[in-house]
Amino acid sequence: MGKARIGIVGATGYSGQELLKLLVKHPFVELTYVSSRAEKGKPLTDYYPFLPPSLDAITFSDVNLDEMQEKCDLVFFATPSAIAKDLAPVLYEKGVKVIDISGDFRLSGVSDYQAWYGYEHPFPSLLNEVVYCIPEINREQAKGCNFISNPGCYPTSILLALVPVLKSITPKSTIVIDSKSGATGAGKKASVDLMYCEVNESFKAYAVGGKHKHTPEIEKYLEEWSSYSEKVLFTPHLLPMERGILSTIYLNNITEDQAEKAASLLDDFYKNETFVKFKGKKLPKTSDVAHTNQCHIGYEYDKRSSTLILVSVIDNVIKGASGQALQNMNIVLGMDERLGLC
Amino acid sequence: MGKARIGIVGATGYSGQELLKLLVKHPFVELTYVSSRAEKGKPLTDYYPFLPPSLDAITFSDVNLDEMQEKCDLVFFATPSAIAKDLAPVLYEKGVKVIDISGDFRLSGVSDYQAWYGYEHPFPSLLNEVVYCIPEINREQAKGCNFISNPGCYPTSILLALVPVLKSITPKSTIVIDSKSGATGAGKKASVDLMYCEVNESFKAYAVGGKHKHTPEIEKYLEEWSSYSEKVLFTPHLLPMERGILSTIYLNNITEDQAEKAASLLDDFYKNETFVKFKGKKLPKTSDVAHTNQCHIGYEYDKRSSTLILVSVIDNVIKGASGQALQNMNIVLGMDERLGLC
Amino acid sequence: MGKARIGIVGATGYSGQELLKLLVKHPFVELTYVSSRAEKGKPLTDYYPFLPPSLDAITFSDVNLDEMQEKCDLVFFATPSAIAKDLAPVLYEKGVKVIDISGDFRLSGVSDYQAWYGYEHPFPSLLNEVVYCIPEINREQAKGCNFISNPGCYPTSILLALVPVLKSITPKSTIVIDSKSGATGAGKKASVDLMYCEVNESFKAYAVGGKHKHTPEIEKYLEEWSSYSEKVLFTPHLLPMERGILSTIYLNNITEDQAEKAASLLDDFYKNETFVKFKGKKLPKTSDVAHTNQCHIGYEYDKRSSTLILVSVIDNVIKGASGQALQNMNIVLGMDERLGLC
Amino acid sequence: MGKARIGIVGATGYSGQELLKLLVKHPFVELTYVSSRAEKGKPLTDYYPFLPPSLDAITFSDVNLDEMQEKCDLVFFATPSAIAKDLAPVLYEKGVKVIDISGDFRLSGVSDYQAWYGYEHPFPSLLNEVVYCIPEINREQAKGCNFISNPGCYPTSILLALVPVLKSITPKSTIVIDSKSGATGAGKKASVDLMYCEVNESFKAYAVGGKHKHTPEIEKYLEEWSSYSEKVLFTPHLLPMERGILSTIYLNNITEDQAEKAASLLDDFYKNETFVKFKGKKLPKTSDVAHTNQCHIGYEYDKRSSTLILVSVIDNVIKGASGQALQNMNIVLGMDERLGLC
Repeated sequence: MGKARIGIVGATGYSGQELLKLLVKHPFVELTYVSSRAEKGKPLTDYYPFLPPSLDAITFSDVNLDEMQEKCDLVFFATPSAIAKDLAPVLYEKGVKVIDISGDFRLSGVSDYQAWYGYEHPFPSLLNEVVYCIPEINREQAKGCNFISNPGCYPTSILLALVPVLKSITPKSTIVIDSKSGATGAGKKASVDLMYCEVNESFKAYAVGGKHKHTPEIEKYLEEWSSYSEKVLFTPHLLPMERGILSTIYLNNITEDQAEKAASLLDDFYKNETFVKFKGKKLPKTSDVAHTNQCHIGYEYDKRSSTLILVSVIDNVIKGASGQALQNMNIVLGMDERLGLC
Repeated sequence: MGKARIGIVGATGYSGQELLKLLVKHPFVELTYVSSRAEKGKPLTDYYPFLPPSLDAITFSDVNLDEMQEKCDLVFFATPSAIAKDLAPVLYEKGVKVIDISGDFRLSGVSDYQAWYGYEHPFPSLLNEVVYCIPEINREQAKGCNFISNPGCYPTSILLALVPVLKSITPKSTIVIDSKSGATGAGKKASVDLMYCEVNESFKAYAVGGKHKHTPEIEKYLEEWSSYSEKVLFTPHLLPMERGILSTIYLNNITEDQAEKAASLLDDFYKNETFVKFKGKKLPKTSDVAHTNQCHIGYEYDKRSSTLILVSVIDNVIKGASGQALQNMNIVLGMDERLGLC
Repeated sequence: MGKARIGIVGATGYSGQELLKLLVKHPFVELTYVSSRAEKGKPLTDYYPFLPPSLDAITFSDVNLDEMQEKCDLVFFATPSAIAKDLAPVLYEKGVKVIDISGDFRLSGVSDYQAWYGYEHPFPSLLNEVVYCIPEINREQAKGCNFISNPGCYPTSILLALVPVLKSITPKSTIVIDSKSGATGAGKKASVDLMYCEVNESFKAYAVGGKHKHTPEIEKYLEEWSSYSEKVLFTPHLLPMERGILSTIYLNNITEDQAEKAASLLDDFYKNETFVKFKGKKLPKTSDVAHTNQCHIGYEYDKRSSTLILVSVIDNVIKGASGQALQNMNIVLGMDERLGLC
Repeated sequence: MGKARIGIVGATGYSGQELLKLLVKHPFVELTYVSSRAEKGKPLTDYYPFLPPSLDAITFSDVNLDEMQEKCDLVFFATPSAIAKDLAPVLYEKGVKVIDISGDFRLSGVSDYQAWYGYEHPFPSLLNEVVYCIPEINREQAKGCNFISNPGCYPTSILLALVPVLKSITPKSTIVIDSKSGATGAGKKASVDLMYCEVNESFKAYAVGGKHKHTPEIEKYLEEWSSYSEKVLFTPHLLPMERGILSTIYLNNITEDQAEKAASLLDDFYKNETFVKFKGKKLPKTSDVAHTNQCHIGYEYDKRSSTLILVSVIDNVIKGASGQALQNMNIVLGMDERLGLC
């Protein structure tokens, strides 16, 4: 059997860059199509000097769906919002497998896309067909599926910590989720706000007041996967570093018994997993998982205020984007889920 | 009238360093005594090359209380915990004014110090005499006082945001305070955990579960200043940067009317202040106040989850330590509170 | 006597920002005009939240030379290349004192500007009239002068180290100058190359091969101030940090006696200076002078290879730009040169 | 054939950490012995949370040469200076292959070790037996050898750039080498100088004046590999970042023809190599090779000053230490040199 032929749309962003690095090391795939409108015609190794000379022959192509159909078994969309929504369905229709790393197929319906993404979704019927997959939670659903919606970075760090707990425990007050992300999460674009001297030695909250579009994504899958149907309060922050997300999650009005139960639920849920580790009271830091596809989760309980605190870390570019996308690719292609990942 | 003669005990840490920089620019004080056991005999400008040559003549002294009494009108303690508790009372007894930047005089009684600081407090009766002062809240109390306990960095950022609000609004569930601090907050000490390659590109929570000793300090002054007597849940985090604290504060079960009221309370409270600014919905970032004595506070309201979010930023080494200490010094010495600060 | 009325053209870049911070603390000047085309009409404290509320009333103006003439005694140009060249002469003609922080008046003639800056200089006759001033070297020339060309950041760090030495010692082979600068030196502009994730954890040389436009500036003033007329080889590098320049300067074929002589020349030259310090063999690092107007210089000699090495550090935004500009302003206005600086 | 059994002495430093990450991904080796006196008995995955759970069973051992002999085919020394000198020869004598990543076997004789390392070398006769190997230069020598001295980080970046050039071109004046390294190069040890707040936003030269112990290493192999026998002037600097070395190398009195010849020599020398790439006038930056075993080299020529400038970058922890050690291991074990590297 030959190697699977892989294409990437939008390879010049941080997710695309990481995906390239991962694909190059994967034993059973080959890169056959890489598109970038801005870098069209340029050799891949010119733009990414760290790639091996074996890729010298590949140049960035324009976005051409017919050519992709011909050259690829599977195509990743590592594009900003509002690009995959139009292109991915066409490719999928042509029989090419698709993994969309953007948010264009994560929510449920037209009104959600209007409210949170600000566009009219062109293929609403696909929203129920596409599989949103965090393998450690619903990998069975992805098997045999040809169109995967890859989870957002913040939701991955949050759902992995909350889903096993909320299946059995229902907090009485709003869950507060305070997340912090490295600057790769903001994407690669020329903007004064993202300049070195603006991000360095600075820290800020953004989309405060539940305004981030990952809020409905978190709520949708908490409900789908653990029947928890309340609103959550999610606040993202921008860290002066490149990669890593840490989410600090607060559940109030929790008894000590419930907290211990939560710990044992997490332990059970992940004890046989390779990439998700429950560390108990050994709280993780982001560098524990940097450059890996791992998610580490820890917890503490504060008796004085009856609060359960969960701390979850991932590398936002890997488990929060391209690593999980590769894990999903492995599943879709019927390979060992762990191939090419560490 | 001559300049006030100032001494510093513990001038080699980050608070001491910043205090030196500030004192050098202050028009009405002169530095007359600087102690450091480790650097005894060394010229100040050897250890701190950025100080002006006018300080070449000053060398680090050993800690000698008699000499301090003779040479100083006021002495700052910029020491780690458990040093000022023994020395400051003796100096104070000798008639020297004292400002303690450490936590040795912030809590109420012997049992608090046993529980949170792990030592038997030697001068418990002083704990009621000393004035804990955030000038924008209780500057009147500091006037004429000769022993100031300077507030902690995290509590300063938190109390300035919460005190005006909690005077009128009482949230029904636990207040969640998620704070993030630059690495100067961890002090200057040789430790693998604080090495560049360990702190850089990493982010972590610590003292999770309400275990940080600033928790009782926050609760004590919330009660004293706004009659709020519930436990709070406070979680500090370590940022990969040098200076700055951002506290994200969550109040649940809040109506939109209450949120608007909170905003107007903050606006009223700080409208005539130089150093504390209420920015409304223009949320501040830490670099807005870096290298200044300012605190900026913003807010947002999430109607979906009925949550009021307050965001407060300070420079932890200035408004969170040495700048506020200088502000307190100005008050104690009867000077314009703003002298030498920006 | 009233305060001097000061204007700034181009106040939104990093030099402009630092200049504002310095001017606000200066006792004898007041800010009366601040221009920025992009931010026209916006209050200064909106753009720079760290500025004191006393500046709330000042808004960014459009560039209007008549208004500047009316409102200002002295105007700084903190603009990119090719702006001051047209505007500054007009203001100067109108009797307003000018300090140009850009490079538009540093070189000698039309052909130099064609070759290194790529434009036709509109006022070549002014190039001999304007005074290029590093106060520690030629402050006498600036007294009574109404148009100052403020030295470049790299040349300041290099000339301060080399001028006293080359007055007496002439190396036989090319002087190699390897300089490294923080990212504020690259200016404030939206560009992918200057994004946090591109600059962080990266280090590069640029303008390699003597191509940087500071090369002719260094050579011109070495010749003017120390009669050294050979070409030098200057290579700048970009550091993953905000502020600071360190120049490592290599002089070959030097005897041990000459090296000792160089040290004593430097010592003599700067022994009475406030801002420039010769540290002998205690080599300086950039953080020794961060946030100050100081330049520290050290040296070493390698007997094995007969090389004298000079190491010079400045804060590129202060001594390398706005601090030195303020120092020049003090001189031009007949004030104590050190006012408002540390 | 089973997998090769590998041991590491000193696995808790930055070279050891990187070596572990690389070995875990290598298809034909297994880790059988990992020593650390400080962490003895602790599971590897406790100390390094990012390692896969498959290593949970391995704990740090004390240093026991008999046990190593029994369990290992090859042992790496990733120790500070002055440890391998005593232990490695004993292991080698017992028939275990050895790769020493420290400097204990790089120089020629007893007097060199006395002068540059400050110790009496216990096995001087071995210094001629051991092979110092940069595979792209002398890989043939390493084949069949059982004791490899792995090159230093700075020398690797410098020799790869200079050896092909100096074989044909002899500069008339001292070669100036100005190198800059990330902070992992300083090792992992509790020291105030290496604290985050001391290294961040700071840059310094060290060992100035030809005092770094890599100086004789560079000179020895320049002579051995290109017959260049003059002294060089090497100055290292510490960058505020984690990984990466950039060396800027200056050759004076070079004609334009010679410069073009140098470029073609470099091009020829590396055109068939996987890990070393000559980029011509596209000058490399450290992030081009971060997290890879690559070395990229570029050049420029300054006609005005007759100077040839070479710029060479590596990841100091990989090509400068553990990656090159793994490359050497592959050679020693008769495997494809590129296995497990990218």
